[in-house]
Amino acid sequence: MFNITPQDVEDLAIGAAILGTGGGGDPYMGKLMVLQALERGRTVTLVDPRDVDEDSFVVSSAFMGTPITMIEKLPSGLEGVKALESLEGYFGRRADYLTPAESGGLNSTIPLYVAGIAGRPVIDGDGMGRAFPELQMVTFHLYGVKATPMSLADEKGNGVILDTIDNFWAEKIARSVTIRMGGWASIALYPMSGSQLKRSIVGNTITKAMGIGRSIREAKAVGKNPIDAVLDFTGGFELFEGKITDVSRWIVSGFAKGEVTIDGLNDYRGRKLNIQFQNENLVAMIDGSPAASVPDLITVLDMETAEPITTERLKYGFRVVVIGIPCDVKWRNEEALRLVGPRYFGYDIDYSPIETLMEGRG
Amino acid sequence: MFNITPQDVEDLAIGAAILGTGGGGDPYMGKLMVLQALERGRTVTLVDPRDVDEDSFVVSSAFMGTPITMIEKLPSGLEGVKALESLEGYFGRRADYLTPAESGGLNSTIPLYVAGIAGRPVIDGDGMGRAFPELQMVTFHLYGVKATPMSLADEKGNGVILDTIDNFWAEKIARSVTIRMGGWASIALYPMSGSQLKRSIVGNTITKAMGIGRSIREAKAVGKNPIDAVLDFTGGFELFEGKITDVSRWIVSGFAKGEVTIDGLNDYRGRKLNIQFQNENLVAMIDGSPAASVPDLITVLDMETAEPITTERLKYGFRVVVIGIPCDVKWRNEEALRLVGPRYFGYDIDYSPIETLMEGRG
Repeated sequence: MFNITPQDVEDLAIGAAILGTGGGGDPYMGKLMVLQALERGRTVTLVDPRDVDEDSFVVSSAFMGTPITMIEKLPSGLEGVKALESLEGYFGRRADYLTPAESGGLNSTIPLYVAGIAGRPVIDGDGMGRAFPELQMVTFHLYGVKATPMSLADEKGNGVILDTIDNFWAEKIARSVTIRMGGWASIALYPMSGSQLKRSIVGNTITKAMGIGRSIREAKAVGKNPIDAVLDFTGGFELFEGKITDVSRWIVSGFAKGEVTIDGLNDYRGRKLNIQFQNENLVAMIDGSPAASVPDLITVLDMETAEPITTERLKYGFRVVVIGIPCDVKWRNEEALRLVGPRYFGYDIDYSPIETLMEGRG
Repeated sequence: MFNITPQDVEDLAIGAAILGTGGGGDPYMGKLMVLQALERGRTVTLVDPRDVDEDSFVVSSAFMGTPITMIEKLPSGLEGVKALESLEGYFGRRADYLTPAESGGLNSTIPLYVAGIAGRPVIDGDGMGRAFPELQMVTFHLYGVKATPMSLADEKGNGVILDTIDNFWAEKIARSVTIRMGGWASIALYPMSGSQLKRSIVGNTITKAMGIGRSIREAKAVGKNPIDAVLDFTGGFELFEGKITDVSRWIVSGFAKGEVTIDGLNDYRGRKLNIQFQNENLVAMIDGSPAASVPDLITVLDMETAEPITTERLKYGFRVVVIGIPCDVKWRNEEALRLVGPRYFGYDIDYSPIETLMEGRG
């Protein structure tokens, strides 16, 4: 258990955006909110999931929707507190801990802000160890935890509570509510016991994200390559290096979908990498062959600074390095792959672990 | 206070569909549900709103959505009970009375079914004295009652509770939830005190609907014209008589919109009547001049049987009489007309009371 510092927040924002695989929102806004809370004397305490009481009450705190709509409709940060308090009111029980639902620029930082304002400790972990576009795509779901009762709150003061027959219906109804609310909402969901949490969480992802951010910062300080530092820290692989030559985007049913084409540079000259995304990067193909796919992580980094580029910021002309990071082992069984593998998203390929695909490239 | 009989239910279904002005759903399904409840020994007690305790707790029970979707997705009837109980759970208080929200084939009968199953008395009245397409279009709203907290329940077992900043947001969010639920949902809303109810309700509309149905039945029994009986009972007017020559329909954002053209017969030969509808009949024009408009009631009846024809059943070739009935006086002030007058629905005409328009026709 430890209290986070402003430097931790800076490191976390960068590292979480790398784990966010292009989604999970821009790191900047969430970071500012947490820094502001710390400046105002709030404390944010991080707790290892192994130290949580079995019969404590844990609630997941997150942002749901298309992050791009946040630019037009700024959050006050208090929606997240309202969502938490509505759910607590519904249960008639105070949450002992908050847990992030996913790793990502916003969804790793906003729960820290909510926790700081509401005065609750935050679990060091989340339900994905990466970002995914739909709310049933969490390890909590794999271990039988129900997403509902869940609450949604917007910046205007509207609140909604859902109690659905399964987590797919929670996703469908919550998605239509977020669209109607203007594109995004703060949510509190996956109410569970400490013992459920311990079984189902991807642990220590907040400290992992902080470690990634720190390794980039320290590499830069001594003139080393920050991308190598990320790969060392995460056990990841360099998939490609090149220049973005095409980006297409469309918003469908509240999701930011699209694809990006990257023309190879240096060792990759003459080859093309294509990434399909739906909020997050889902599948990367080099000249038509899979280089990596969900649930493994695919992240686009700025070639010079190693800054992660979210899918909504991908732009023609950017020089980038694309990296892949193995997902948590909880995602590598058949049931998990039915939930988050490439076929769920409509791609006609089977999942192969990124390590296997890299070996195949020789 | 009295307990309704199967004959009352038969009369109510027909009369309420006439007050439903083309919307409010088909009378058949709601009627069967109530008859079934009575057959199984349930009691449905109707209470005059004047007899309600000032500090009692009243909840409105209704069906929301496009009735046509009920044909594909049949209700069990228990969704309404679930919606009621969810809202009661949210308040931690049992409703002393249920009140219908609108008059219409379904929305006058379903609350009786819910009341019979849940064992609550039903108020003889509703929030419209007719049917309207949006949930803020009730006299409750005009008297400052909030639609939320409200609950929605579908036939699968999904439940939603809304708490919005105003009744327009309740309409918007609830509408998107009903669409996602498959086109309709059972709802419980406008939680209020007995004193709020007494101020804001359009009273005695259930017994009025029963009276309309009875007058048709009795006229037929003695070989009199049943449409004349309806006009006598309601103080309504015959607007037109003719044959349907065109019907167009489209579903937009969860509403069944459309228009119908009727070519005149008998005294109306050579003239055309056009009705614009959005779930309900909104505006009737004869050869381009207003004959009646919201909030006054416009209802299409079968020429022979006087059976009301809902907007989703209008069909080429039907021979019909179109009648108009003055709305409740609560709808005839400026604020009410801003809420439900023809301009709200996008028609470029001012409201004139149907009595005035009929005088103008000489």
